[in-house]
Amino acid sequence: MKKLNIDTNVYLYPMPVVLVGAIVQGKPNFMTVGWVSRVNFKPPMIAVSINKAHYTSQGIRETGAFSVNIPGKTMVKLTDYCGLVSGRKVDKGMLFEIFYGELQGAPMITECPLNMECKLVDSIDLPSNELFIGEITGAYCGEQFMTNDNPDIKKIDPFVLSMPDNSYWGIGEFVAKAWNVGKEFKK
Amino acid sequence: MKKLNIDTNVYLYPMPVVLVGAIVQGKPNFMTVGWVSRVNFKPPMIAVSINKAHYTSQGIRETGAFSVNIPGKTMVKLTDYCGLVSGRKVDKGMLFEIFYGELQGAPMITECPLNMECKLVDSIDLPSNELFIGEITGAYCGEQFMTNDNPDIKKIDPFVLSMPDNSYWGIGEFVAKAWNVGKEFKK
Repeated sequence: MKKLNIDTNVYLYPMPVVLVGAIVQGKPNFMTVGWVSRVNFKPPMIAVSINKAHYTSQGIRETGAFSVNIPGKTMVKLTDYCGLVSGRKVDKGMLFEIFYGELQGAPMITECPLNMECKLVDSIDLPSNELFIGEITGAYCGEQFMTNDNPDIKKIDPFVLSMPDNSYWGIGEFVAKAWNVGKEFKK
Repeated sequence: MKKLNIDTNVYLYPMPVVLVGAIVQGKPNFMTVGWVSRVNFKPPMIAVSINKAHYTSQGIRETGAFSVNIPGKTMVKLTDYCGLVSGRKVDKGMLFEIFYGELQGAPMITECPLNMECKLVDSIDLPSNELFIGEITGAYCGEQFMTNDNPDIKKIDPFVLSMPDNSYWGIGEFVAKAWNVGKEFKK
């Protein structure tokens, strides 16, 4: 067992990749985020952790809303680009077709298979990052990405991120049913 | 664009799968968690969201520490089992070979390729869940899961979770380099 250098080398394997949307200074902006997790069951909540200095953080604070959009693999180049440039310099709202649900502060991306609009309910001030906790007040999925009225991961075709090798990976083969395959250990 | 029922159908695609370790009433216990994310860059922090009533939550509160262990695909059955049964009824510490780093409250699993010990720094009380934020104070990786002194996702061979279809999936093919493939959009 090798002890790792936690300053450079501690990461969760693998991480989901999402585009977080916000209205900053009156204009829609999108940023790539890998630090994201569901955090509450009922009501449904999701949290995203963003560097405090980022343009997107400013927008979430201003409007009290944000969106979480899950891109498919076909969007990998544009998704990566949204993590390379700041909304301070580039109008990233121009890159996508945008739609809105009920929250004016949560611009969503039509091209992304799955979209959630979130009302900010709490914000945790951490040393370098701010953790924004949002209640998911609406969720949307293109019908072409659904099977039997449920989002279908094979059709969504998302990708995940590994660090520090900084690589995106597709979703592989089916492994097992969750809350099921472990039943054989039950006595 | 179809509006989803957010009570049953709003999920992040896909989610990582980890085993969270804690000492509860003096004994090591492990629980399967899919709601986990890095949340701060320096110092490195990670957050896990757990139902407040869970046995593991009690242990984290008691000791102020927990561990995050990333299982490989070969461990899928045992990992799933740890999400099916409560430590109140089953001694899940018996299921693994356990080692410790510097925190007595953070039992780690030798069989898991990647392990992090975490000191609780904050706890956010949400309606049904508690969000535990831990500073990663140590991280460990079996040398057989590393390449050039870095954890290697191909050797770790982790799996991810999708809901509501409740399925585990492997990691697929390499898609692109992150913070790189989007450069072609830069003008």
